[in-house]
Amino acid sequence: MHGDIDKEMEARSVDGIIVLGDTTFGNPDLTYVVGGSLARGGVYFKRIRNDPLLLTSNLDVTTARKYRIVKQVKTFTDLGYEKLIAKYGRDYAYPRLIETIVDQLGIRGKIALFGRSDLASGIHLVDQLRKIGITVIGEKSPTILESARETKSTEERSLIRAVGVKTSRVVDGTLGFLRNMKNRRGQIYSGKRRATVGMVKRWISTSLAKEGLIAPEGTIFASGVASADPHNLGNPRQELKQGKLIVFDIFPQSETGYWFDLTRTFVLGRADKKTVKLFQTVKQAQVAALDSMRDSIPCKNAMMAACKIIELEGYRTLRELYSGKTRTITSGFIHSLGHGVGLTIGERPYLSFQNGEHLLSNQVVTVEPGIYLAGFGGVRIEDTVTITKNGVDVLSVVHQDGLEVT
Amino acid sequence: MHGDIDKEMEARSVDGIIVLGDTTFGNPDLTYVVGGSLARGGVYFKRIRNDPLLLTSNLDVTTARKYRIVKQVKTFTDLGYEKLIAKYGRDYAYPRLIETIVDQLGIRGKIALFGRSDLASGIHLVDQLRKIGITVIGEKSPTILESARETKSTEERSLIRAVGVKTSRVVDGTLGFLRNMKNRRGQIYSGKRRATVGMVKRWISTSLAKEGLIAPEGTIFASGVASADPHNLGNPRQELKQGKLIVFDIFPQSETGYWFDLTRTFVLGRADKKTVKLFQTVKQAQVAALDSMRDSIPCKNAMMAACKIIELEGYRTLRELYSGKTRTITSGFIHSLGHGVGLTIGERPYLSFQNGEHLLSNQVVTVEPGIYLAGFGGVRIEDTVTITKNGVDVLSVVHQDGLEVT
Repeated sequence: MHGDIDKEMEARSVDGIIVLGDTTFGNPDLTYVVGGSLARGGVYFKRIRNDPLLLTSNLDVTTARKYRIVKQVKTFTDLGYEKLIAKYGRDYAYPRLIETIVDQLGIRGKIALFGRSDLASGIHLVDQLRKIGITVIGEKSPTILESARETKSTEERSLIRAVGVKTSRVVDGTLGFLRNMKNRRGQIYSGKRRATVGMVKRWISTSLAKEGLIAPEGTIFASGVASADPHNLGNPRQELKQGKLIVFDIFPQSETGYWFDLTRTFVLGRADKKTVKLFQTVKQAQVAALDSMRDSIPCKNAMMAACKIIELEGYRTLRELYSGKTRTITSGFIHSLGHGVGLTIGERPYLSFQNGEHLLSNQVVTVEPGIYLAGFGGVRIEDTVTITKNGVDVLSVVHQDGLEVT
Repeated sequence: MHGDIDKEMEARSVDGIIVLGDTTFGNPDLTYVVGGSLARGGVYFKRIRNDPLLLTSNLDVTTARKYRIVKQVKTFTDLGYEKLIAKYGRDYAYPRLIETIVDQLGIRGKIALFGRSDLASGIHLVDQLRKIGITVIGEKSPTILESARETKSTEERSLIRAVGVKTSRVVDGTLGFLRNMKNRRGQIYSGKRRATVGMVKRWISTSLAKEGLIAPEGTIFASGVASADPHNLGNPRQELKQGKLIVFDIFPQSETGYWFDLTRTFVLGRADKKTVKLFQTVKQAQVAALDSMRDSIPCKNAMMAACKIIELEGYRTLRELYSGKTRTITSGFIHSLGHGVGLTIGERPYLSFQNGEHLLSNQVVTVEPGIYLAGFGGVRIEDTVTITKNGVDVLSVVHQDGLEVT
């Protein structure tokens, strides 16, 4: 949370932070410190244990003041940027502007620099700042802001919940669209046309747009053997068949910058025994994982809870890899249980065997066990949840819970 | 074009370039050198006058090879990244991997680093590389890749043209949607409901989705006095009225990474004399600008051609500012004529008075004169065009050409 920034700066002996970018779009750190989006971005300055200062363009200053995260918002013009450009030229005025503000705020020690930028111009800026005596440092992960962003404020949680409600509506609507299709001898028809993955994907895109969501990284709608590859987005030309596994994984972003992650696996019509067992195992693994989760529990425990159920049913899991029993694993539960969600679609904390940390209240994470059988298909069930003192609060509100869509 | 990279490296005495990122999404330089999108990004290496090498994840390697821009595509595993992680740890293995490849390719001099990244981790990487003796440099604008990206290959031009066709269909469709509305005493109705900007924007979003386009920076649909502010996206709750100016500026991106930019200004029903004159002046200014443009013509000439027409009709233009006649200008033609479009929505070349360069064949630029009258409204007409030896090739194919939509 924002309140953690000082603590994280203290822990790293950092005296100031600067966050910049020419837009908040695709720039989670800048969106976070600004408290919302700014079309033309800005520069955020904070000295440890002091209130931050935000510089924006004249066009964004009113918007920036509305967010109320940063009390002191000024424009580039207020700080005399145009005069600096006249004196130093455009390429060198920017470091001079930063120098002016660093001096005004009395930042003397190390300054960590954040924000998403082109590396070529970022390095150019850093080298200029260092040349004029400002001690700019980088950070390895987890950075000050990655750590602060790990637990979510009440407002952030309600923004994520809102994306969850919209995403769930898209999933429910898509399943309704599929339910209205006709099955003739195992082939699925939408009206008189053979239904394809592409047809469903266009429906999903349109539904996302109606909800004001975008899916910049695509949507997974993988049918049949394609569902056995957890990263396969689905082949648009593939036709839908009765009884085949379909993994539908949707991860949209709202205009607030917050993401959501949700997966349902289903078959159209009746499923065979092997498919039913696969589905029920994943479902039980998810329940076991969710039941194990609450504030202060080791992250890897949730992963372990899911693996135990999956192994009991005779499938392989990543546990073999991390116990050193094998060197590669290509079938079974072959990815980690989950990851944080917020201003990015994949962030701390990670629910994996490698993570030695503990869950904390107000983290928002996915819980997404899956089993993949090459040449057959895969099942993954995923919900995004908030960690609470005594358990989890599930943010997805999808009506479909079972395997068969009829 | 890709062929210019060597020339630009030579001009800057740079021996190697590295382009990186954990995704090509929102990463134009990496998309450019890879020749398409890679979900998990990669690292591109090029020694001057030598073929490049691309490293990708195991999941993206097949896709990367299909693009055929880089002949040598390897995976992180091929290069022994896992062993380096075991030896150095995750944070220090990455610079060691880069070192290995820089040595293999025989890059000895300065290396310019590109790609969009979090600055904190970017600076951390640069400092590590410098510590192990690799001379990494930043670049001020225009960088090697910005310069190379300025002229477009045949394939790039056909990708941009395809976005243009789709964008034009969205504009035509939206105008059709508006044409079907009813006018009752100056108020516009969609069925029984009063039509609002928000209603039209939802229609636009849905149409974009159907075309497989996204509009990550929004769409401008500014009605009435709001149209006098060139950056106003439009107020969703505002109701549509007969005879009021509407600036509709749409700038979507396709999944190929390429953008398009297109603006039409119109009124619903009949326009008054002042509005008609404003529209005709902008239209004539655009024609004059387009007529002035071809390979080898100074960029500022196109801007000048538009200003002359606009001034003849009695409106103010930026020429007053650049001739030193005034210090601020808030009404009239208050922005530059255009900018390049490609893997970003605003890039070189810029059609402005500050740009002393000449147009080149195969540049793709917007031509978008506008006149803005505070308290009244604005008109902007924009097309995206390719520069050719003898003129321009207009890429927009919108049917609406006049002011009144009836």
